[in-house]
Amino acid sequence: MGMRLEVSKEELNRRKENVSKEFKKRNLDALCLFDSHQIFYLTNFKFIPTERPIALLLSEDEVFFLVPELEKDHIELYLPDVIVKTYPEYPGLKHPMDYLRELFFELNLTGKTIGVDSDGAPTVFGYHGPKISEITPEAEVKIVPDIIKDMMVIKSPEEIELIRESAKWANLVLSYLQEYTKPGLTENEISQRASTKATLALVKTYGEKDKNFTGFADYAFAGFRGQIGKHSLYPHALTRNTIVREGDVLGTGAGPIIGGYQSELERTFIVSEPTKEQEKYFKLMCEVQEIAFNAIKPGAKCSDVDEVVMKFFKDHNLTDYWRHHTGHSIGLQCHEPPFLDIGERTVMQPGMVFTVEPGIYVSEVGGFRHSDTILVNEDGIEMLTYYPRDLKSLTIE
Amino acid sequence: MGMRLEVSKEELNRRKENVSKEFKKRNLDALCLFDSHQIFYLTNFKFIPTERPIALLLSEDEVFFLVPELEKDHIELYLPDVIVKTYPEYPGLKHPMDYLRELFFELNLTGKTIGVDSDGAPTVFGYHGPKISEITPEAEVKIVPDIIKDMMVIKSPEEIELIRESAKWANLVLSYLQEYTKPGLTENEISQRASTKATLALVKTYGEKDKNFTGFADYAFAGFRGQIGKHSLYPHALTRNTIVREGDVLGTGAGPIIGGYQSELERTFIVSEPTKEQEKYFKLMCEVQEIAFNAIKPGAKCSDVDEVVMKFFKDHNLTDYWRHHTGHSIGLQCHEPPFLDIGERTVMQPGMVFTVEPGIYVSEVGGFRHSDTILVNEDGIEMLTYYPRDLKSLTIE
Repeated sequence: MGMRLEVSKEELNRRKENVSKEFKKRNLDALCLFDSHQIFYLTNFKFIPTERPIALLLSEDEVFFLVPELEKDHIELYLPDVIVKTYPEYPGLKHPMDYLRELFFELNLTGKTIGVDSDGAPTVFGYHGPKISEITPEAEVKIVPDIIKDMMVIKSPEEIELIRESAKWANLVLSYLQEYTKPGLTENEISQRASTKATLALVKTYGEKDKNFTGFADYAFAGFRGQIGKHSLYPHALTRNTIVREGDVLGTGAGPIIGGYQSELERTFIVSEPTKEQEKYFKLMCEVQEIAFNAIKPGAKCSDVDEVVMKFFKDHNLTDYWRHHTGHSIGLQCHEPPFLDIGERTVMQPGMVFTVEPGIYVSEVGGFRHSDTILVNEDGIEMLTYYPRDLKSLTIE
Repeated sequence: MGMRLEVSKEELNRRKENVSKEFKKRNLDALCLFDSHQIFYLTNFKFIPTERPIALLLSEDEVFFLVPELEKDHIELYLPDVIVKTYPEYPGLKHPMDYLRELFFELNLTGKTIGVDSDGAPTVFGYHGPKISEITPEAEVKIVPDIIKDMMVIKSPEEIELIRESAKWANLVLSYLQEYTKPGLTENEISQRASTKATLALVKTYGEKDKNFTGFADYAFAGFRGQIGKHSLYPHALTRNTIVREGDVLGTGAGPIIGGYQSELERTFIVSEPTKEQEKYFKLMCEVQEIAFNAIKPGAKCSDVDEVVMKFFKDHNLTDYWRHHTGHSIGLQCHEPPFLDIGERTVMQPGMVFTVEPGIYVSEVGGFRHSDTILVNEDGIEMLTYYPRDLKSLTIE
């Protein structure tokens, strides 16, 4: 048996009850979802989004799926209790949305109100199709992208356990990455070695399951994503084939997906004895991250956190080195709203999970950023990631 | 120097000239693109799409970018000749689309016609924003998702070279995968070992560049994606932590990204001496793939290929085992239109690149699918992938 790598049936039922409440509040007779994360959130069913749309249709008391033939057996294996309707293919001789329209008819939704997460299936891989409001002139369509998204903001104890589990693997794989980082090696050699070692440990730890699960828990990756030496200056570097050298500032990160949920752990490494300048910005970065941690508390606004961070940048003449907000929510997706951003007025509440990662990017010196994943609790925060943050611990000898 | 891992400046110029022709044809004064693949296609600039939208704005003779501060230095490194306008962040105190509107004003687009690839930036990671038509009442907005997408359909000689290069690495990494596949091992052990070995060869082959490139050419992966034993029945299985066993049918695949472009190579392996049933469906699958190859020729329609494939399924009483169309186009994305689908009336032309992968999925036996990437030429097809396809070669001893 061992650890459960997905949220429980009870949790899924609670989520569905919350959806039912929204039905009443918003006068909906049905809800139709296309977004793969929202569908996973309500069902634990994971699929690869392609040009073939998949729709989850909830009525007051039943759950329907419209899927391409490709996913028929797959969904029946994982969701035996759900009513599955299939269409052959996309583009096909008849458009998938025509099948969806027929499903609306079968469910007697004529004259009723249907909520949708987006007005049409997403345009993945060249999919092209009509708006839902166009195919259902006989029903009222309300676009409600926020119903499920809003529920996702406050993480439940089960969700927090999975993020906590992700943080442990992030710690292991980043430890290996640090251990294997040596001047003269390429990013790939270091990253592959660390990721392979952690991944094999992960797979052995969880073992094979009776019924194989689909929530992504088989791969612990850590890497640099090109943030090596002068390229550490680019928070979203995608540089390739780079060799690590003495004196480099390195941006590193990890955040394995466990049961669909992920953490984010990022650390700045310095290769060999830091220069005075490197030390200066590294320490300022640690200081401003601490200030951000302290600003997070239930009842305060997300913008409050970013404001104190930006004040720190201003007070220390660092504004030229500012490139992004303090952090973002995290869970089923690697970035989720709300953001720790000066423009985000959302009030923080217990159960929210944020990354805290103010960064300082100095031309000719490098980019300095740690990212930790924290849980907002009744008193302030609980750290979910816990890798050392100080310069001495992160200097590669 | 060595091999160029991105398309040339000349090729980018030709693409821009083609865009200019579309300007005239469609009476556009400017074109605004949000889609990361379309932007890469015109600029060779690769970025991670997030909640912070990025827009490429083309006027008759100038190229502008709107990017968040996060990408400022990054884009200036790779595109020094482009005019870059930045906004601080999303959500921010002022919405990114307000900055875009100002850019429209600066470019004197009042009363003019602006083409956009979608009516608003894509809703990635909780981004929320207005339609372009809402922020520009003083200009006419035309939604033209097809301008760049249509250009992408016919691959140029340079693009074909990159896909060909991808096919070579796919061959190497799949060879390792087959070599390392043994009963008793998990998917992860086999896949990590093969992918690491091929990746390190890839990195050493290309070496470090003067100016590091960003077009993704550093990772050769091969794996099973859960298509192991009875789970090979699910073409889009996402099963995890599975152990390979004697008698299993295995779905495998590889398709490294080289300079942004990818191939697709998939093979069905049988672990130990195949049963009569396994042999039967394996051979039928090879036969129907051959039939599909032979049906591809310039002047024929995409649907023609899928029709002969479906006829084969019918003639051999295989219709119950059919799950998806014959294939899809491939290039910058792993699936692109047009599709080899019964509903796709597009006429095939030299320069199109398709996967050919009819699959047979039989409960209690398994899923059988090879996927090859082919180029349509003047006479018919050229195989870009070339791994053995016969049962003997793909039986794991």
